[in-house]
Amino acid sequence: MINETISRRQFLHRLGALGGAGITLGAMEALGLSACDSTQVDYRAPSPEDFSPKDGAGVSVLILGAGIAGLTSAYELEKGGYHCQLLEARARPGGRNWTARRGTSETALDGSMQACQFDEGLYMNVGPTRFPQHHTTLNYCRELKIPVHVFGNQNADAYYYVEGAGPPSTKRIRFRAVQADSLGHITELLAKAVNQGTLDQDLSAADKETLIEFLRSLGALTPQNRYQGSPARGYRAGAAPGAALQSGTIDTPLALSDLLALNTTGGAFNLGYFLAFQYEWEQAMPMFEPDGGIDAIPRALVRAIRGPIRYGVQVTHIENTANGVRVSYQDQRGQSGQIKADYCICTIPPQVLRRIPNNFSAQVNADLSVPIPINAGKMGLQFKRRFWEEDDRIFGGITMTNLDILQILYPSHGYLGQKGVLIGYYNYTPTADTFGALTPQQREQHALNQGSKIHGSAYRKEFETSFSNDWRKTRFSEGSWINWPPGTRGGPGTPYARLLEPAGRVYFSGDYLSYAIAWQHGAFESARKVVMDLHARVRASQPLQSNGTTASRRHP
Amino acid sequence: MINETISRRQFLHRLGALGGAGITLGAMEALGLSACDSTQVDYRAPSPEDFSPKDGAGVSVLILGAGIAGLTSAYELEKGGYHCQLLEARARPGGRNWTARRGTSETALDGSMQACQFDEGLYMNVGPTRFPQHHTTLNYCRELKIPVHVFGNQNADAYYYVEGAGPPSTKRIRFRAVQADSLGHITELLAKAVNQGTLDQDLSAADKETLIEFLRSLGALTPQNRYQGSPARGYRAGAAPGAALQSGTIDTPLALSDLLALNTTGGAFNLGYFLAFQYEWEQAMPMFEPDGGIDAIPRALVRAIRGPIRYGVQVTHIENTANGVRVSYQDQRGQSGQIKADYCICTIPPQVLRRIPNNFSAQVNADLSVPIPINAGKMGLQFKRRFWEEDDRIFGGITMTNLDILQILYPSHGYLGQKGVLIGYYNYTPTADTFGALTPQQREQHALNQGSKIHGSAYRKEFETSFSNDWRKTRFSEGSWINWPPGTRGGPGTPYARLLEPAGRVYFSGDYLSYAIAWQHGAFESARKVVMDLHARVRASQPLQSNGTTASRRHP
Repeated sequence: MINETISRRQFLHRLGALGGAGITLGAMEALGLSACDSTQVDYRAPSPEDFSPKDGAGVSVLILGAGIAGLTSAYELEKGGYHCQLLEARARPGGRNWTARRGTSETALDGSMQACQFDEGLYMNVGPTRFPQHHTTLNYCRELKIPVHVFGNQNADAYYYVEGAGPPSTKRIRFRAVQADSLGHITELLAKAVNQGTLDQDLSAADKETLIEFLRSLGALTPQNRYQGSPARGYRAGAAPGAALQSGTIDTPLALSDLLALNTTGGAFNLGYFLAFQYEWEQAMPMFEPDGGIDAIPRALVRAIRGPIRYGVQVTHIENTANGVRVSYQDQRGQSGQIKADYCICTIPPQVLRRIPNNFSAQVNADLSVPIPINAGKMGLQFKRRFWEEDDRIFGGITMTNLDILQILYPSHGYLGQKGVLIGYYNYTPTADTFGALTPQQREQHALNQGSKIHGSAYRKEFETSFSNDWRKTRFSEGSWINWPPGTRGGPGTPYARLLEPAGRVYFSGDYLSYAIAWQHGAFESARKVVMDLHARVRASQPLQSNGTTASRRHP
Repeated sequence: MINETISRRQFLHRLGALGGAGITLGAMEALGLSACDSTQVDYRAPSPEDFSPKDGAGVSVLILGAGIAGLTSAYELEKGGYHCQLLEARARPGGRNWTARRGTSETALDGSMQACQFDEGLYMNVGPTRFPQHHTTLNYCRELKIPVHVFGNQNADAYYYVEGAGPPSTKRIRFRAVQADSLGHITELLAKAVNQGTLDQDLSAADKETLIEFLRSLGALTPQNRYQGSPARGYRAGAAPGAALQSGTIDTPLALSDLLALNTTGGAFNLGYFLAFQYEWEQAMPMFEPDGGIDAIPRALVRAIRGPIRYGVQVTHIENTANGVRVSYQDQRGQSGQIKADYCICTIPPQVLRRIPNNFSAQVNADLSVPIPINAGKMGLQFKRRFWEEDDRIFGGITMTNLDILQILYPSHGYLGQKGVLIGYYNYTPTADTFGALTPQQREQHALNQGSKIHGSAYRKEFETSFSNDWRKTRFSEGSWINWPPGTRGGPGTPYARLLEPAGRVYFSGDYLSYAIAWQHGAFESARKVVMDLHARVRASQPLQSNGTTASRRHP
């Protein structure tokens, strides 16, 4: 760990003085500044002093795409004195980071048009909507002063609703009940096995005793190691603990075989997945979202970037030239043009990029065709009354189901208000494609039908308006994220590894070049990695001056 | 369920017209309006139309104590036209609902004085600080338009730190790691037992197969049903999934016997308790707190109440008279006086009330001596840097330890800000009394010493100022809450049940007369119960008019 009495800048300078630019960059990497390490103590974004002296002065970088990766690239490079400009095909920044609200309209690739009719102040995040506390996304929220609040990724009182899975089917069950019954039955069974001596080879006598005690606490077992329900599973309707003699009546637990029937519904939303979801690295609470919509992030980046961002500009050709790059484009009025720069960072998704003419090698073009675009669909439903809060006492969180809406996400903002927008479905390949094939009106009816199974008549009665999106049909995205087929992502020789290297002076960046695909973290981290790679190359090409710093000059 | 096409008011009127006031009240209870049922669909607070016609017009109620129970009593009774006034011994409303901020000062019963020096905008909730979504507290936040946000009662990345518990001792371990390892080992052991046929009497062949699959998901077991760690437990420092080739390196799990050693630390903060806490009826996420401090609740109630609230007034005598109640008091200037009213609701804690002269029966006085006051202590520590967020990436939540600070609660507000106040200890009888015996300065040093074991040198380096409270030494409270000794709370004939009945015209109210002791919910619910009891008595004493409504007249 770096000695706290010298500053980061001093430290880098000392190393630079000893060994030149290469070592400085190496030291920066060692300090965790290049690829932000989310569990490391020092997890700041590169700050101006990390690019010192301003080695990028005079170096121009053209960035294709103003999503998270593109905006972050510009934001970080400008700290180092680079001259950046961005081309964005859409009329807005953010890419898949997109908040729909009154005034949002979108024409899908199939020509269907939607205009969002939510009330003023209501919104839905169409793409990413949450991030865990260890993601770099939160660092940028700090640095860019974006206020955040807790995203309810988990709610003990949200429902689990399945069909075709034995006795518990078509009954909405509170998450807490399923969870308490699962732990109760498991701990009871294990206590029984331990007491029968089955596991004596694995457990010392002392461990056995401690284990039984532990299981009793965890599963809320009786002193006889039986599970008979517990307050953790919740109380009967109308019989929670209250005043006077209302001591509370616990409901009867699900029988073990009924509980296990919940694990046979197939697909991702099996009982085991349902319970394990809350513990996942990227899903465990707390999670966060920006106040007012996820697009607070790209909007803050745009405000912080000095270089120009041109919207409505589609790239038509990408070329490496002898001393730089040349990108051809067509703007909204159909006029074409060219931009030259020293370097290019291309954040266009591979499934779109591979159709854009270029002079990359055949290998690069082949590699860009490897990732398989995945689909996801989401619908925001505006209700005139927050019945899930008022009637069901669910404040944020997720109801999961094996219906093809897959999940209902209750809003984590506007609590106790009058109206609200919840996510009526959020599903993935292949179900998302089935929804995507429907018209927006058909999707709405389908979502209302299935949601009504869980929430009853209020779901139709209080409904006002919807907005939906299918990412595969979304222009300039053509997918929600990508999958790397088995064996294509990893060490040297894989298509993934090859795309981590620049094609000439063109660097590729995006969440698809990370191990955090579908998370903004992946885009941030990929951008930071590419920025440091590019910076290292620029430094390496500059002569070292006698004082240990490098001269700033027109590159190359 | 009431037919949605007639209003609640119409429904009550119809019943009233048929059967008189008694039935109307019964119907209100049947509708869940008297004792608010937290899991019931209709969980509104009584609204003005629930007291219709205004039977309380002209009836005076003197309320002793302006804590949650007292304020709620006045607020609800005024909806029915009752004339309320409140006497409060403190200079502020709220009782144990108390937020300390710059300007707060307190002299303890032992004469020690503290003045809170937190920066403007920073605060600590000295008493209650959170409530689950099913508590009535949240209803009042809605009704009184008190904005709330999520209280982080749980955090996968907070620490578990123990001493004297084998190999994992004195190492701070992330909650997620302990949890993943616990589930991993338990599911592995159970899968093994199941496959050995030990539990064949309990499980059908099909259930066995499903159970194994379920255990594999829940515990993140290998296809061979072994636990070898998982992403859920987190990654090595500096090796979380990121860009390029950073795929993430999972750390080695705790061995089963080491994990079990964590369950032998004794006391409430054993491993089993630590894991089960997150599932509890009253502790499962999400939980909430008002924006800006818990005292937003009493302040909103005070704004909504029309009747006078007199502060700094101590009750010296409570008497039932022939037609009402007479309460003697002494004000801040030492001047004494008397107030007469038709009824009294007394919310003074039993351990204080039992010393106030009265003409209650000997039985009532004996019953008031039964509850045993418990102690709790808390300290807010202001730090000039939110190192728990910046260095440890912990945003809200609770670190638990078997050190006598017991827990550190990270603030659930002001995320990403510069400074913050965390709760440096929150402990209970008997540890709280040990802390309470120290001077505020000694408590501060003790809290800093123990917190430094978990958070290292930052804990002293960034520290600025503290404020602490010991509830047993707090005037007018003399305890954090009470316990009913075994057998004294329950059905007819118990001291608890007798205190649910009024002593003449004096009704007792407070969380101590509920099954939600130590929660604001208990105080709200107790107040609502007493309000409805009093209202029923008033209605029963009024003659029924020919139109089925009761006459409003001076009572009695």
